[in-house]
Amino acid sequence: MRNLLLTIRYLGTAYSGWQVQENAPSVQQTLQDAVEKLFTVRENIVGCSRTDAGVHANMYCCNIRTQSLLPCETVVKGLNAYLPSDIAVVSCQEVDYDFHARYSCEGKEYVYLIHNSQIRDPFLENRCWNYKKHIDADFLNKQAQSFCGEHDFKAFCSAGSSVQSTVRTVKSFKVERSGDNIIMSVQANGFLYNMVRIMVGTLTDIIMGRIAPDTIESIIESCDRTNAGITAPAQGLYLNKVFYKSNT
Amino acid sequence: MRNLLLTIRYLGTAYSGWQVQENAPSVQQTLQDAVEKLFTVRENIVGCSRTDAGVHANMYCCNIRTQSLLPCETVVKGLNAYLPSDIAVVSCQEVDYDFHARYSCEGKEYVYLIHNSQIRDPFLENRCWNYKKHIDADFLNKQAQSFCGEHDFKAFCSAGSSVQSTVRTVKSFKVERSGDNIIMSVQANGFLYNMVRIMVGTLTDIIMGRIAPDTIESIIESCDRTNAGITAPAQGLYLNKVFYKSNT
Repeated sequence: MRNLLLTIRYLGTAYSGWQVQENAPSVQQTLQDAVEKLFTVRENIVGCSRTDAGVHANMYCCNIRTQSLLPCETVVKGLNAYLPSDIAVVSCQEVDYDFHARYSCEGKEYVYLIHNSQIRDPFLENRCWNYKKHIDADFLNKQAQSFCGEHDFKAFCSAGSSVQSTVRTVKSFKVERSGDNIIMSVQANGFLYNMVRIMVGTLTDIIMGRIAPDTIESIIESCDRTNAGITAPAQGLYLNKVFYKSNT
Repeated sequence: MRNLLLTIRYLGTAYSGWQVQENAPSVQQTLQDAVEKLFTVRENIVGCSRTDAGVHANMYCCNIRTQSLLPCETVVKGLNAYLPSDIAVVSCQEVDYDFHARYSCEGKEYVYLIHNSQIRDPFLENRCWNYKKHIDADFLNKQAQSFCGEHDFKAFCSAGSSVQSTVRTVKSFKVERSGDNIIMSVQANGFLYNMVRIMVGTLTDIIMGRIAPDTIESIIESCDRTNAGITAPAQGLYLNKVFYKSNT
């Protein structure tokens, strides 16, 4: 048995998320269909995380344990031939048999894209949150530093999650402006359900005056979801990087 | 009567081009429909140029002679409320009555985007030409300098054009690499039918070995379309800037 680590990239607009769901197209299902055509056998694919409906991935990792002997280069070309144009396999490499895309993962980076303008950008439709009120990126960047470190992020987790612990370590949170776009990049050892979207929504609620500045620490400490901000729309969110031990 | 100069931006994928056509959605028609709803009267809209089906515009200019007294800010907001998400009005300003988006135009800049990779980019679907063979941007940039200056570009004009003169002045032609993307920017006082796409296709035919290097001058001199290269796909082309006299 070989264990193949696939890196893929996808525009999430047409999908209900990564995870296979009944009656809704998912990225996992679409990839499994392509794998079945290429390998002529149905294989289970293990993803690095669920992503929500409409969320995108610049880099998503998954692994397949398979008896297929196809060379990695052929796997990339073959899957891309069978996949629709909104999903692409970027790379394939053989890894240790015990590598697991989810459990071996040591951290991830998400990017959230806000188009901060009165006027929508036709080229960013479904790819950003069009936010009209002016955002001071430097100010929000300072506010966001309160997220960094090891905390119980229960206040930043949507209901419906079944995780054992809500403690996570945020390694960095950057808010930058590039022209009319605000780019937020968050690295953590793991993320709770909707955690990035609630962190982004909390920052924009500070801009809107619905949440007072310099209160993120106390919101975290409260462990109460109702103290945090709105859940920012899915379409601005990108899984950007997935980190594994360097020997993968 | 007022004369309003509108600057718009559009993703051309869903349209047969700028110009109104029977039985095919056009940008002009879509904009005229929005104007009719806002102004409650049908107005003729004069565009700066035709664009082909599938071609995009980062900046497109058009003007409307109208009796409407709506303030420019209201025109922008109102039209954006009526337009579909793939077209946006970026600005509106009142200009001299004799200003004409096409005849007053002194030059334009087109950008052509090539994704130069074995693997397609899901985020650039319908927004680039995915070209697999490696392109040496510096080499092509040197080749492209032969386009600059005043020439008869008849060899770079598709059949079906009815222009009187095929002489144009190319002011600049830049070919640059940014990661896996090749960005070609061309400025000229005017462009013939399919001129940018044939220039791009001629450059890539040099990469493919179908056209010898250092022959662009002689292709121009031949005035023979069959000596030039293929017509590069429409989806990589963007009208990027439109130049008017500064007093507009």
